[in-house]
Amino acid sequence: MRANGIFFVLLLVAGPLSAQTSSVQDSQPPYKQQNLPTEDRIHDLVSRMTLEEKARQLDMYAGVPDLIDKATDKTHAAPGATFQPAPAEKLLGNLGVGSIHDLYPSAALANSIQKWVMQHSRLGIPALFIEEGLHGYSDGTVFPAPINLAATWNTNIARQTGAAIASEARAAGVDMILAPVLDLAREPRWGRIEEDFGEDPYLTGQFGLAYVQGAQGDSLASDRSVVTEPKHFAGHGSPESGLNTSPVHMGERELRTIMLKGFEPAFREGHAMSVMAAYHEIDGVPVAEDTHLFEDILRGEWGFRGFVLSDLGAIRRILEDHHTAATPNQAIVDSITAGVDMQFYDFDHATFQNAVMAGFKDGTLTGEDLDGAVGSVLRVKFKLGLFDHPFTDPTLTERVKRNPEHLAISLDSARQSMTLLKNDNHTLPLPKTLKRIALIGPNGNVARYGDYEDEKNGKHISILDGLRTLLPDTQVDFDEGTDIPQAVAKARTADIAILALGEHQGISGESFDRQTLDLPGNQEALLEAVAATGKPVVLVLENGRPLTIAWAAEHVPAILEAWYPGEFGGQAVAETLFGNNNPGGKLTITFPRSIGQVPVFYNSDPSKTGKYVDGSSQPLFLFGYGLSYTTFAFGNLAVTSPAASSNDDVIVTVNVTNTGDKPGDEVAQLYLHHDVSSVEVPNKALKGFERLHLNPGEHRTVTFHLKQSELAVWNLKHQWAVEPGSYTIMVGNSSLADLKGTFTITGNKN
Amino acid sequence: MRANGIFFVLLLVAGPLSAQTSSVQDSQPPYKQQNLPTEDRIHDLVSRMTLEEKARQLDMYAGVPDLIDKATDKTHAAPGATFQPAPAEKLLGNLGVGSIHDLYPSAALANSIQKWVMQHSRLGIPALFIEEGLHGYSDGTVFPAPINLAATWNTNIARQTGAAIASEARAAGVDMILAPVLDLAREPRWGRIEEDFGEDPYLTGQFGLAYVQGAQGDSLASDRSVVTEPKHFAGHGSPESGLNTSPVHMGERELRTIMLKGFEPAFREGHAMSVMAAYHEIDGVPVAEDTHLFEDILRGEWGFRGFVLSDLGAIRRILEDHHTAATPNQAIVDSITAGVDMQFYDFDHATFQNAVMAGFKDGTLTGEDLDGAVGSVLRVKFKLGLFDHPFTDPTLTERVKRNPEHLAISLDSARQSMTLLKNDNHTLPLPKTLKRIALIGPNGNVARYGDYEDEKNGKHISILDGLRTLLPDTQVDFDEGTDIPQAVAKARTADIAILALGEHQGISGESFDRQTLDLPGNQEALLEAVAATGKPVVLVLENGRPLTIAWAAEHVPAILEAWYPGEFGGQAVAETLFGNNNPGGKLTITFPRSIGQVPVFYNSDPSKTGKYVDGSSQPLFLFGYGLSYTTFAFGNLAVTSPAASSNDDVIVTVNVTNTGDKPGDEVAQLYLHHDVSSVEVPNKALKGFERLHLNPGEHRTVTFHLKQSELAVWNLKHQWAVEPGSYTIMVGNSSLADLKGTFTITGNKN
Repeated sequence: MRANGIFFVLLLVAGPLSAQTSSVQDSQPPYKQQNLPTEDRIHDLVSRMTLEEKARQLDMYAGVPDLIDKATDKTHAAPGATFQPAPAEKLLGNLGVGSIHDLYPSAALANSIQKWVMQHSRLGIPALFIEEGLHGYSDGTVFPAPINLAATWNTNIARQTGAAIASEARAAGVDMILAPVLDLAREPRWGRIEEDFGEDPYLTGQFGLAYVQGAQGDSLASDRSVVTEPKHFAGHGSPESGLNTSPVHMGERELRTIMLKGFEPAFREGHAMSVMAAYHEIDGVPVAEDTHLFEDILRGEWGFRGFVLSDLGAIRRILEDHHTAATPNQAIVDSITAGVDMQFYDFDHATFQNAVMAGFKDGTLTGEDLDGAVGSVLRVKFKLGLFDHPFTDPTLTERVKRNPEHLAISLDSARQSMTLLKNDNHTLPLPKTLKRIALIGPNGNVARYGDYEDEKNGKHISILDGLRTLLPDTQVDFDEGTDIPQAVAKARTADIAILALGEHQGISGESFDRQTLDLPGNQEALLEAVAATGKPVVLVLENGRPLTIAWAAEHVPAILEAWYPGEFGGQAVAETLFGNNNPGGKLTITFPRSIGQVPVFYNSDPSKTGKYVDGSSQPLFLFGYGLSYTTFAFGNLAVTSPAASSNDDVIVTVNVTNTGDKPGDEVAQLYLHHDVSSVEVPNKALKGFERLHLNPGEHRTVTFHLKQSELAVWNLKHQWAVEPGSYTIMVGNSSLADLKGTFTITGNKN
Repeated sequence: MRANGIFFVLLLVAGPLSAQTSSVQDSQPPYKQQNLPTEDRIHDLVSRMTLEEKARQLDMYAGVPDLIDKATDKTHAAPGATFQPAPAEKLLGNLGVGSIHDLYPSAALANSIQKWVMQHSRLGIPALFIEEGLHGYSDGTVFPAPINLAATWNTNIARQTGAAIASEARAAGVDMILAPVLDLAREPRWGRIEEDFGEDPYLTGQFGLAYVQGAQGDSLASDRSVVTEPKHFAGHGSPESGLNTSPVHMGERELRTIMLKGFEPAFREGHAMSVMAAYHEIDGVPVAEDTHLFEDILRGEWGFRGFVLSDLGAIRRILEDHHTAATPNQAIVDSITAGVDMQFYDFDHATFQNAVMAGFKDGTLTGEDLDGAVGSVLRVKFKLGLFDHPFTDPTLTERVKRNPEHLAISLDSARQSMTLLKNDNHTLPLPKTLKRIALIGPNGNVARYGDYEDEKNGKHISILDGLRTLLPDTQVDFDEGTDIPQAVAKARTADIAILALGEHQGISGESFDRQTLDLPGNQEALLEAVAATGKPVVLVLENGRPLTIAWAAEHVPAILEAWYPGEFGGQAVAETLFGNNNPGGKLTITFPRSIGQVPVFYNSDPSKTGKYVDGSSQPLFLFGYGLSYTTFAFGNLAVTSPAASSNDDVIVTVNVTNTGDKPGDEVAQLYLHHDVSSVEVPNKALKGFERLHLNPGEHRTVTFHLKQSELAVWNLKHQWAVEPGSYTIMVGNSSLADLKGTFTITGNKN
């Protein structure tokens, strides 16, 4: 039973008044009247639709190959491709279409399809164009991967990135992108770590919010905005054994206080208008048929009004993998009843739409649930303005795609994401006077983008490119490192060896789960052999997940974590190595020492007190950690203690000073521990952060406004409660955060 | 609020009648009248007790050093130790004592203490003597570790082992043992795997039941019986990161359908009269204050009438590690209110008992909850007959301890637990004509017992001893393997090398958690170096958890898993290697190929469909797997299909034939899959097993009675339900179980 059934009851009461008003103003049916409230328009439109038309709105169609004449691959229209009405008519008839995916159209192509769809739909309902846009749209600007974006600890860049991707997509006639990913990266074996904003719920929540606000803009009707689709709702990031789509073992308290906190701001504050139903089950209940998740929490508690899209095949998995439905019809009806509104290639169109209609006819799918689903899809189309302004200015792409502002954002993001893990004896920055550099390793002469981007797209600034551009007078010898003696020989002839190691798209990304976190292939041997030459060695990592680099952490003097830094990555790496960019990125995921320690997220509960007998139980690098070429000091921590009844924020102030000799960025991080609570809470939980730029000697007072709602626990009565008592505040430049203060919440909320 | 409060209300109604009857018969107070119902006696006694006396019953006292004159170590009384009334009087006064632990008394010593306690307690309440007894009592018979016992797949041996341990303990004046361990071994990094009966809920449940029935006997008042204390209630076996006592991430469905199923038969059918409250939290709720677990499920649903003992310090952890109580008093009161009845050294006696009294006085601990706790402890003392026959026959130990019957059980258990993992080209059994054997490795010349047993106890039959006894005419050269070239040299001079590798008590057992599962130290190198000699190599493993022995599994022709086989282990290993014992043990825990695969339990849900990009996602050795020197065939599977309303069992019959040329044992294993269910259920779940001895050519029809209750799922309404539909039965000699049948449950239960 869907919660949004309630909404339709309310509309029936409110309906007549609106209808009367509009009938005086306009002879068009209410749903076509732009001046009417959206809810009135939806209600009117749904009331006019046949069962077949309703079922159609819940289905997604592939653009390639069905609707066009030529394509570059299985998902992208070729340049100059044109719409083909004949196959479209055969496929769609006159019943309309929910959404179109896998097309990556030009605006002209999208317009011609949209025109045809509206003309060939009895009620003139537009199509919704949906494409991927995780860290760049199609062959537009390639931004650093989400794991980089988070490493900036700068939500402004997330907002800018979201807005830039949105504008490049919308200019091409695309209305919605399948992003951001708000899963928590607690399981490093999982291949999708690179798509996440890290392991922390608060940080993920803030980055998700910023990305959604940037991409959806002030109005979805703007030609710079798209609908966002946070995913994979919910709890996807902790699959059993690190294997993608595997069962998630978790109770409701962890789900609510950890996993869902990464999503909540994107919906409650950001009003994201779509969401993806994930593949997995939680404690035996497949997400794609979990009424509690979609109806009780997402719609009921968070007020979500958009539509829920199946992850590609998630409804089908109910039948084929979860075995909780006996037939396609049951899987489809159960899923829609639970709150999923649109299939994603789960079943062929006839099977899906017939199941919807049969379910309605036999009563297994109520009219309320069916109309709720249809209304959710239509609401998104109304909010996008597709009924009123269905076409895209075909000249817009030229002004928007890869424009200088977007390229600058990508470069800024790459620079700010550079995370310095080790720098003994000021090895970095390197002097530009070096005569000869050996750049060694498989990641030296390629731009590593990460999943959902084609590494062949874009400007391709590899680390080699970056070094050669920055150091025109230095000889940079590159060796891929496949032949280790040859690589060692090159290192011997150089002043310094830069090792460009890490991962690539074949071992990181969706479905690329690993059972080791070691440097892959021969890379560990390569690194150790080059280091054995005695030449100074710098390790640059490009990778999609934490790696177990214990040897390097002990023996290599300087380690720079670059993740997958987008099309300007090689430039940002080179600038950082040679001091043009002072690194200020921080880890958003803990680095384990060995695979046998996982999971090792920082915000574990305090009762995790055990130790291993055969090695350290401490991580290699902490959450929030990252070095700079300058130094910073934290001091003068002050904390207020509000009464619960006041609902006032806890105000935390701290002084941050650049105590070194170079300008640089620092991230002030605020962590919380509830000293005594009714249920166990993490040892420390990030509750605020701010990235600062400070010149040498400069200081700044950072003020955090900690909302009382951030203190709430999901108590034994299964309710949120802010509990009175003492709390500890920890502030610093990593999760070590050893500057401590306390505050007290007195009394209870009224 | 405790569920057993209800019971006291009922008693108040029934009370007067019993009191009248008894007052005619006996001038003693009702609680001293042996002929009265136990519940009447408890009620009468509790009504006579002061608050101080009640608090005292909930506390445990250390025997060593406080009550005696000399001890061999911190927990064991020395031979001839005598009771010291003066310190006892100072410690206990005249308020009695709940229990006494860490004494390992003689019967005479226990009697003298018991006599004093009863005389110095106003109401003559006896003490309860509690000691460890996991796989042997003190310096009595050392039985194979629980992981061996389970490997026999023979619950008769579990019953015999429980009974033997109980009789050796009770003869020494001990009333209760801290066993069995019914945690599920799903996390091989965890050091306590060796204490478990494996990863499967059904198998664990059956072994727990057998052990409890054996140890508790027909009557606890028998001088051969003790109270058992299944532990660690509940869910302890899947700690975060494999670290002992760490948080458990789990929802109620997994808790109920997997974890608790290992415990349920011990209580519902076995009527175990104690239970240990575990250290960890589940989804934020510390077990030691979880009312739902103890009151709703254990007492409410399962009818438990015994007492709940804190794991050593579990109540204290509420305060110090979980941080869900602000003071010792709060931790203590919360814990008792939740259903825990006795502390285990959590706090000093004054702190604990004062907290109980203060809680009662300030109303935070209700009289109902307090009396419920006291009544639970007293009930166990009444059931043991301690009020009526408080003393132990001091001549009993001589007849019971290490008697031939017990030693035979230990040897039988060791033999039946031998699990043959690999045997290419009939390498085993070895011919007794071998002239010279090199026995190499750290486990060759020591009896590995596992935790909770002193390896210096007992008869000490090492593998070396076993080989030399069995093969008096063969030269057996032993080398510990610390110097690998020396070991290799010894192997070169022998006809065959037997590698005795694995673990020892310093890396396996309580708090000995590992982050690798590799052969420890130099063992892998040793194995590979010896194998490189080209000599035939046999690997014998003694270890407490699965090890990642992928190289051995590929390169060593024969591998025998001996676990920790007790004091006759070396004999059983030698007999097995040379064919006097045909191995018939089966794995009760899956062997992963690499640490990066964990967890890898066999009964994962079917939606675990992912694969690793850098190695196999399949385990190395399957649950239920184990070879024999003969071969068996399964056939003629037949399955009945009862109506749900009938509540009839599903009857499964299968024919097993010894198709080889040697007598041997096979384990027929029955697995179940519910084809379509309302919530996701495991791919396959063990629901029946039977170990058979068959001579060559002999066949037997095995009949399984599968109860409909075994089909029940914990559905979305949070209720147990047997769902109509089709089910698949899989039968075989491992969890591969490729002989399949189906049955249908028609209709619904009334």
